[in-house]
Amino acid sequence: MISSFHAVIPAGGSGTRLWPLSRCSSPKFLHDVLGTGRSLLQATWDRVEPLAGPERTWVVTGAAHARAVADQLPQLSEANLVTEPSPRDSAAAIGLAAMLIHDREPDAVMGSFAADHSITNEWEFRHVIEQAVAAAAGGDIVTIGITPTYPSTAYGYIRTGEALGLPGAPTARRAREFVEKPAAGLARRYAYSGRYRWNAGMFIARADALLDQFARRAPELSAALRTIADAWNTPEREAVVAQVWPRLEKKAIDYVLAEGAAAEGQVVVVPGDFGWDDVGDFDSVAKLRQPLPGEPDSVHAIGRGDVVDIESSGIVFCDEPKVVALVGVDDVIVVDSGDALLVASRAHAQDVKRAVARAREIGRADVL
Amino acid sequence: MISSFHAVIPAGGSGTRLWPLSRCSSPKFLHDVLGTGRSLLQATWDRVEPLAGPERTWVVTGAAHARAVADQLPQLSEANLVTEPSPRDSAAAIGLAAMLIHDREPDAVMGSFAADHSITNEWEFRHVIEQAVAAAAGGDIVTIGITPTYPSTAYGYIRTGEALGLPGAPTARRAREFVEKPAAGLARRYAYSGRYRWNAGMFIARADALLDQFARRAPELSAALRTIADAWNTPEREAVVAQVWPRLEKKAIDYVLAEGAAAEGQVVVVPGDFGWDDVGDFDSVAKLRQPLPGEPDSVHAIGRGDVVDIESSGIVFCDEPKVVALVGVDDVIVVDSGDALLVASRAHAQDVKRAVARAREIGRADVL
Repeated sequence: MISSFHAVIPAGGSGTRLWPLSRCSSPKFLHDVLGTGRSLLQATWDRVEPLAGPERTWVVTGAAHARAVADQLPQLSEANLVTEPSPRDSAAAIGLAAMLIHDREPDAVMGSFAADHSITNEWEFRHVIEQAVAAAAGGDIVTIGITPTYPSTAYGYIRTGEALGLPGAPTARRAREFVEKPAAGLARRYAYSGRYRWNAGMFIARADALLDQFARRAPELSAALRTIADAWNTPEREAVVAQVWPRLEKKAIDYVLAEGAAAEGQVVVVPGDFGWDDVGDFDSVAKLRQPLPGEPDSVHAIGRGDVVDIESSGIVFCDEPKVVALVGVDDVIVVDSGDALLVASRAHAQDVKRAVARAREIGRADVL
Repeated sequence: MISSFHAVIPAGGSGTRLWPLSRCSSPKFLHDVLGTGRSLLQATWDRVEPLAGPERTWVVTGAAHARAVADQLPQLSEANLVTEPSPRDSAAAIGLAAMLIHDREPDAVMGSFAADHSITNEWEFRHVIEQAVAAAAGGDIVTIGITPTYPSTAYGYIRTGEALGLPGAPTARRAREFVEKPAAGLARRYAYSGRYRWNAGMFIARADALLDQFARRAPELSAALRTIADAWNTPEREAVVAQVWPRLEKKAIDYVLAEGAAAEGQVVVVPGDFGWDDVGDFDSVAKLRQPLPGEPDSVHAIGRGDVVDIESSGIVFCDEPKVVALVGVDDVIVVDSGDALLVASRAHAQDVKRAVARAREIGRADVL
């Protein structure tokens, strides 16, 4: 456990590329996408709660998912479940959490960790977060940078600068710039340059420092969130939230804070070599769940279906006790989920979002 | 309409290679496999009823399917629906029909036509059957031979002999030999020899001649069927059937009659150039339903599902109003049917029966 450390899990996003497993009404983080027996949210809790303790672990989620989140996380205290009446992107979600944390514990250090990512090495993860907390002591915003293993066009990149030699954080470097998901050519340059890292979407900072950044770089949002936070533990909470929340700017925290802060040399990046993946699409899921050497089947089955496979490989999700037969299909992704069925090739996993758009076009938003 | 002609439709077989569309409890012939709006059985009825008239069109089927058959064929008279308490293969089914037909109309000519085949050219089909009836006048058994278009290992072959120059049947030839489904090398020799034709599983014969063949070549079966036929229109039918039927030999009519009759020069083959296919597997289904030039979609959807496809081709059966999304899969067969889901490649359509066997092995015979 890290002293005065609060872990925040923003649990949002609909995970369109994981449809129909992930739906607007039941997004990715609520599902056992990797077949481990725990949902991605539960796995995130299991990873971060030991760093902060149950009293200092928070979840920010949409009102529609609050009940499901509480059901999945019996250890989560009611006071630490922050519900948003409507999605207002990560700046609002993390900003509000920062204020509530700061109000409760003024010298808190907080970390924000997406609810739907995969990390293979939890021991290394904890070690990196400890370094990040050390690096945050001086008031900078600390991010985690993942060494690119290929020229991904699906991740944002962080350009790194000089090593800082910080006490307790020997690998920390200055973060020079945040770059949005690049096109293929640029991604290749970044990946092989040795100077760019993937942005794992994690932030570690002192709560007071984060709130200072908010006040300077997004004064309107900051003031509005202050109004909500002041009403939070009063009978007026509901009325104030109903009035203020819908008018908040919908912006990502990277855009609101991190880019400007990096330009002014106030962001630190700590390399995170802990087997990170954002579980962004079914190709990623299939890769994470591929059979181990010696495993008899080349088809990985998750859920309640009975899978029979003849000369096939891939991954099958089925939430009913039906028989799913694969015959002569390779690297296939099959998701049978109630009123929707997806059959996709791993190579086209990114195009699942096109199928979702098409379903909307033909008037079947009821299954999205 | 052909004078004194009776059409018999043996509706049996479970169609394992079309699972899970075809099930033991609801076999292939009951389904609109080709998405025409008519089941294969109904399409067969539509094809043969004009030749025989409704009073002379018969269906022989298992007791379990009698209700479904009657529902699908409102024109079928109750007296012409012959139900078998258990499957006893085609010799018993067609033999019993021949006796019932002969008892009703001693100079009848009958034709037997499987309930689950596809024929594209009905005009040509009728013309060929008229020739076959003419060729049957002399007391021979007449079969229909299909010119092989490729070296199929899934069909039986008929070796043809000399042209017979029969009146009304100018293309009829002597059938020399029936050959079971051959191995690939032999199939190639047969297909390119010009002397072999595929056995389309149709028989046309005078009822009395067919019964003579039965009496000579299968005297026990013949006598047992005679016992049943004699009781058919009496109050004892049920008791006699219950006693005699379960002990009948389970043999195909090709084996019981046709092979021996051919060896003795009593079988005629009439070439049938009417676009025949046995709809044996999903590759066949996909071929029969492939999109026409100019059709926008390369995915053919049959049933109640809403299909969206992204860079995909194939065929989708779905009996529920769910969304089926195909993404980056080519030549795929998707059958979503209640408690079973099949995803197969066209190239492996024959292997669907292996998946069925596997499902049985893992204790899921409930979905077969």
